[in-house]
Amino acid sequence: MDNFYGIILAGGAGTRLWPLSRELSPKQLLELFGTDSLIKRTVNRLTKLVSEDQVVILTSERLFDEIRNHMLSGKPSYRGVRYLLEPAARNTAPAVLFAAWRIAKEDPDAVIGVFPSDHYIERDDALLAAVRFAADVARQGWLVTFGLKPERPETGFGYIEAGDTILAGGGFHALRAARFTEKPDRATAERFVSSGNFFWNSGMFVFTVSDIIEAGRKYFPEAIEALETLDELDEEEYAERAREIFEGITAISIDYAIMEKSDRVAVIPVDIGWKDVGSLPAIEEFYEKDAAGNVRIGKIVDLDSENSIFYSDSRLVAGIGLKDMMVIDTRDATLVCPKERAQDVGKLAGLLKERSADEFLAHRYSLRPWGSFVLLEKGPNFQIKLIEVKPGMKLSEQLHNHRSEHWIVVGGTAKVTIDGEERTVHTNESVFVPISARHRLENPGKIPLRIIEVQSGEYLGEDDIVRFDDEYGRSEAPG
Amino acid sequence: MDNFYGIILAGGAGTRLWPLSRELSPKQLLELFGTDSLIKRTVNRLTKLVSEDQVVILTSERLFDEIRNHMLSGKPSYRGVRYLLEPAARNTAPAVLFAAWRIAKEDPDAVIGVFPSDHYIERDDALLAAVRFAADVARQGWLVTFGLKPERPETGFGYIEAGDTILAGGGFHALRAARFTEKPDRATAERFVSSGNFFWNSGMFVFTVSDIIEAGRKYFPEAIEALETLDELDEEEYAERAREIFEGITAISIDYAIMEKSDRVAVIPVDIGWKDVGSLPAIEEFYEKDAAGNVRIGKIVDLDSENSIFYSDSRLVAGIGLKDMMVIDTRDATLVCPKERAQDVGKLAGLLKERSADEFLAHRYSLRPWGSFVLLEKGPNFQIKLIEVKPGMKLSEQLHNHRSEHWIVVGGTAKVTIDGEERTVHTNESVFVPISARHRLENPGKIPLRIIEVQSGEYLGEDDIVRFDDEYGRSEAPG
Repeated sequence: MDNFYGIILAGGAGTRLWPLSRELSPKQLLELFGTDSLIKRTVNRLTKLVSEDQVVILTSERLFDEIRNHMLSGKPSYRGVRYLLEPAARNTAPAVLFAAWRIAKEDPDAVIGVFPSDHYIERDDALLAAVRFAADVARQGWLVTFGLKPERPETGFGYIEAGDTILAGGGFHALRAARFTEKPDRATAERFVSSGNFFWNSGMFVFTVSDIIEAGRKYFPEAIEALETLDELDEEEYAERAREIFEGITAISIDYAIMEKSDRVAVIPVDIGWKDVGSLPAIEEFYEKDAAGNVRIGKIVDLDSENSIFYSDSRLVAGIGLKDMMVIDTRDATLVCPKERAQDVGKLAGLLKERSADEFLAHRYSLRPWGSFVLLEKGPNFQIKLIEVKPGMKLSEQLHNHRSEHWIVVGGTAKVTIDGEERTVHTNESVFVPISARHRLENPGKIPLRIIEVQSGEYLGEDDIVRFDDEYGRSEAPG
Repeated sequence: MDNFYGIILAGGAGTRLWPLSRELSPKQLLELFGTDSLIKRTVNRLTKLVSEDQVVILTSERLFDEIRNHMLSGKPSYRGVRYLLEPAARNTAPAVLFAAWRIAKEDPDAVIGVFPSDHYIERDDALLAAVRFAADVARQGWLVTFGLKPERPETGFGYIEAGDTILAGGGFHALRAARFTEKPDRATAERFVSSGNFFWNSGMFVFTVSDIIEAGRKYFPEAIEALETLDELDEEEYAERAREIFEGITAISIDYAIMEKSDRVAVIPVDIGWKDVGSLPAIEEFYEKDAAGNVRIGKIVDLDSENSIFYSDSRLVAGIGLKDMMVIDTRDATLVCPKERAQDVGKLAGLLKERSADEFLAHRYSLRPWGSFVLLEKGPNFQIKLIEVKPGMKLSEQLHNHRSEHWIVVGGTAKVTIDGEERTVHTNESVFVPISARHRLENPGKIPLRIIEVQSGEYLGEDDIVRFDDEYGRSEAPG
């Protein structure tokens, strides 16, 4: 698969799984569905087909650090994948064309596969075999989609009506896509399911970069024009204007903008163990239930509840007599909601966004290339973090203009440099970093370094940081 | 009211309001019902009648520190009240006789009023006027109870049937108590309410110490025998054996043991704005509801909930579409329960007790004579507290055999003495207390001293403390 590139769509913020997901910890980063996060599963799957540098994660500038930290952390980690940053979030049509346009510049003969980062797929091999076949179909000039056999008359999905067979091979058939229907009503959905030639639209695509750009030029020219304008910018202009230009493109899905309009669309029916994780009750499909039908994750005590979901990060959650409810408890926020109202979680998260609530933006736990931290407590003029630095890793050399920091080592050994003076700090020792002192923290040891950091000062924002030297190529971002 | 003593029953642990109440933070200490805690309201009411040293709080050794710290903390604080410690918890009959026995030794002519510490009473003056009258009735040889006009056919309370008038005065009537009925069935309760001469048993009593002891000797002799046995013990024997002896007494309420049996019982009907706070939905009576009938206390966001109770200590609680539910969120535990299942909260708390759950025993927030602390985080070999020391107060001189402590001052100024060496530590400075160092912390200033304490060691129990000098007469207890 030499000319093949896997494009992973990872720009979505995803609020429907709040409080598990946050604006900066979208669904694809959650380690709740199977052993790894959905985005790591997606990357891992593609690396069975192509090398890591043929995997391109398409995301936003805002999410970039979070996603890269996630990809670098834990096991497995992925250092070789590439990142493309959309200038603005304008739904999938502009995003896919942006990626195709960029890939075409380095490989005009490229075939790209487009994969959401937040879908659960059980059978990697089945999908990969279908993708190989799809690449052949794409090289014959087709825009290829993958169709899922509908399991129920779901009204929230898109359906593709399949026509005649175009090509067969490797156990797959590519059928002409006759019609796209988004979110049908119940009766229509039932008819689709019973007819046998309708498929759920999986949101995955394969095409050559030249075909999709040509289709874009024909059906969605404003996007191509914007991409051409971006090409004319030098680096400085790009930094200043790309966002504005990209925001000028209509926000529209690739299905609406191109697939529905083109007569060169093929659909390959696949059976890949796909699961929707679009709302919190999806958790139920990944955990064993107790005798009363409850899913319990974390420290739970319960009397008489039925068919309910209990999730707790760390604290004790107690239920009495709940029926068909969800109780989702995280370090800084708890949600209680009937399962049948799960579709309104996004609306609630929207309310929090309007109020600029911390609990909407991010979790108190945060990954960094060098390890992680948890914000334990915020008080007037102080905050406390538990910082973990992986063996051999170091933080950037930095200073803060508004806060001093007390570091107490509670596990492992730290190498600390303050204003050029280096010292070793052992477990149960502490060190003080005055305001404006240049400092660097490093774990020279073989086990994780754990530090309690008490920050003290009149302004404690993560953006009070001046970086001098960073292993990870960061300059402004926190930590 | 020279010979009058107010006895406040404060030995109950109270699990029915969990997670708001804990074994060591029973209902009477909660600041949830009106401005002060129920026990402070009870003390305050009695001090309008008698001096502080005529107010005696009867509690257990286990709860003593918690209750005294509570009485000394905040405003108003009560330094002059006295404490009597029951050797064991054996319900109200042994407790009341124990208190009467002790009071009789210092004042054989004493009249005592017995008051629960966890009842809400709106109209102090109405009760106090009734108590004055009751003291007169008691001096004529009656055991006096107070009857509440029943507001509904409640099946969980005790009822007193009233007979002829014995005495009238000051706008009150003392009626002969004809019969006691505990927890009637629904039909009986309805008949009681409509009859007009039945009253709820308020659990408050007035009698002379000699009369109640005489009645005890007649109807509950085993208790009097045990009290006589206790009298024979010297101090050392008392410390060793009192608990065992007291535990030998049948655990029974004063209603069952004495009131129901005596023919010298009077009931004084009172109208005092009494409210039952026996279970969590009682919260509703103390807070304003929103248009949909919800009570919201703390940081709450909600969509479409109705007639529900939301309570949050500190974190964000979000509800969607809840009906007649309670969500009670504290620092270390969350309870979700339909209001109609509130009576099962005690059962749930019982499960937690069986498991020796920290969340059953105590809150993470704890008062001390010198201030307070919050346990912010427990980790492997470390824990973090935020300690607040009131101006002018000092902790005991102490040492720990298994932990060292890092103190970081985040507000105010500390005077710290370590192994005899005294130093002043200002905001944003820190100090290290090594294992086994004798140390003392003091707030010499005029504003509260706030310290982040990071404890580090292999054993972090509160009982790892050796005290050398304590302002508050403690030797073993924590802090």
